[in-house]
Amino acid sequence: MEQRLTLVTLGVADLDRAIAFYDALGWQRSVKDAPGIAFYQTGSVAFGLYPRAELAKDAGVSPDGSGFRGFALAHNLRTREEVDATLAEAEVAGATVIKPAEEAFWGGYSGYFADLDGFLWEVAWNPGFPLDEDGAVTLPD
Amino acid sequence: MEQRLTLVTLGVADLDRAIAFYDALGWQRSVKDAPGIAFYQTGSVAFGLYPRAELAKDAGVSPDGSGFRGFALAHNLRTREEVDATLAEAEVAGATVIKPAEEAFWGGYSGYFADLDGFLWEVAWNPGFPLDEDGAVTLPD
Repeated sequence: MEQRLTLVTLGVADLDRAIAFYDALGWQRSVKDAPGIAFYQTGSVAFGLYPRAELAKDAGVSPDGSGFRGFALAHNLRTREEVDATLAEAEVAGATVIKPAEEAFWGGYSGYFADLDGFLWEVAWNPGFPLDEDGAVTLPD
Repeated sequence: MEQRLTLVTLGVADLDRAIAFYDALGWQRSVKDAPGIAFYQTGSVAFGLYPRAELAKDAGVSPDGSGFRGFALAHNLRTREEVDATLAEAEVAGATVIKPAEEAFWGGYSGYFADLDGFLWEVAWNPGFPLDEDGAVTLPD
């Protein structure tokens, strides 16, 4: 299996509400003619929003589930100040800041917000993970 | 907030077991000197494995949770045959194929496996989402 991630799809309770949130963050949709789903280009990978029940149905699993989803997304920035500003921007868009940014044991600066469906986004500055001008991360060996 | 995803981190029950699974898929770690966490370069985005309890603690949320996690990852390929081969490869590595590939209503061919922690990976051929030679997806407008 090639070392590749093509799409991360979040299953949301209310698609229009979720789109409005990512709109408020300034994100632009692609594949705008696809009904009932929203796609965003995020670097080499796509990000999708799809109704939670539909996502479970597509995979053939029960939609029942609660609590911690066991994963987190992260959005890295180039400075501590940008981390604080992005958390504030997310809060204005309707997110809940569940952990204000603080110095991290691994040498960076990081906080978390939860989107309207409770999905966790870490917002971080990590001096060990450089971002290129397009925002792509390049991991050290 | 820039339209960017930097890292997708899965919270796993047993880090060594999870690393062994992705090893068996042929994935190569980066940041090999980072203790207690595994990172993989997946295009412009990083993919991480971290103990589930540690991930919850980092975000300051309860680790309790069960059932459907409400999201799916996807790995797209260039042909139907590659989809079948990748699902078979994942199964050999220890994954559970929860939906054998079939024709999809959106015009492609898709199935799902669950990794050792139950995280859902869709394996798909989508003729509307072209992949470049490096495997990066470019969404149509």
